[in-house]
Amino acid sequence: MNFCSQCGSPVEHKIPAGDNLPRHVCARCGTVHYSNPKLVVGCVPEFDGKILLCKRGIEPRLGYWTVPAGFMENGETLQQAAARETQEEALSEVEVGSLIAVVHVTHAHQVHVFFRARMLHDRFGPTAESLEVRLVAIEEIPWDDLAFPSTAFTLRRYLEDRAAGSLGHHFVELTRRFS
Amino acid sequence: MNFCSQCGSPVEHKIPAGDNLPRHVCARCGTVHYSNPKLVVGCVPEFDGKILLCKRGIEPRLGYWTVPAGFMENGETLQQAAARETQEEALSEVEVGSLIAVVHVTHAHQVHVFFRARMLHDRFGPTAESLEVRLVAIEEIPWDDLAFPSTAFTLRRYLEDRAAGSLGHHFVELTRRFS
Repeated sequence: MNFCSQCGSPVEHKIPAGDNLPRHVCARCGTVHYSNPKLVVGCVPEFDGKILLCKRGIEPRLGYWTVPAGFMENGETLQQAAARETQEEALSEVEVGSLIAVVHVTHAHQVHVFFRARMLHDRFGPTAESLEVRLVAIEEIPWDDLAFPSTAFTLRRYLEDRAAGSLGHHFVELTRRFS
Repeated sequence: MNFCSQCGSPVEHKIPAGDNLPRHVCARCGTVHYSNPKLVVGCVPEFDGKILLCKRGIEPRLGYWTVPAGFMENGETLQQAAARETQEEALSEVEVGSLIAVVHVTHAHQVHVFFRARMLHDRFGPTAESLEVRLVAIEEIPWDDLAFPSTAFTLRRYLEDRAAGSLGHHFVELTRRFS
């Protein structure tokens, strides 16, 4: 951030009065511009024991596999965001279920939230964001070609819980960058 | 938002190519400025069966009661944010426990997340943000003077679960404004 989004003047990076962290503060109008973590929301769509995976058609991690997920928009709930992303990325309609995982991706200033989901039918397909969408059996999950550590963490916990017949939820902090 | 925070030029509000929602887009450098929900994180600190409440010393809702909570900062986990806010608002140290509630405050573009928490000692006190901090018994909770609907929702669920001896978590969307 270089300029104030309110008045267009240059901003300074300093600790405002009464605060304890440096913020971008407008030198002219005094507006304090806060930067906070963004929510990324997704789900593990299930149909007949198989799960829906998308091969990413956009950066980052183009060509790698993930579950449907994306940035939460204003005005929606986490569950609505997960369903919308599944529609947008995989053309699939889901009923969003219980919480699986909350992944703190602290270095990226993101919190990733994943839910279980039930596909309402077995229709799906590629989109502008997904080169390919596939309903895969558990033994077909491409572990070495997953897009993000949060995808892998979520799928591991999802499968463990499924094997145990439970519906747990799991918090973790993943600080390593994609390599 | 009136000006691009990257280059200082005026922004337009329009749907970028390949998108489906209007965004603030810089007319000169083309930067798309996204606006996403912010996370507000708090906890219900417990000590010897009582809970810790703060009388707000700042707007909004100055003079009303709430549990410690505030905007999540970059670089921290939800649990760290809840503990930090408890320290900042109530001078109390807590061990953050299980998830109680996720409250979608959609009209305010916020997601509020609350955890159970165990106070490590019974020391606490007023701060720049809290006129008064009090450890109250359940029957002393000032229901008519709570600051926010999300506070009330969280305390209700917390108490129901506690009475039932369970540790549930609860999602809700609260769309009404404070009245």
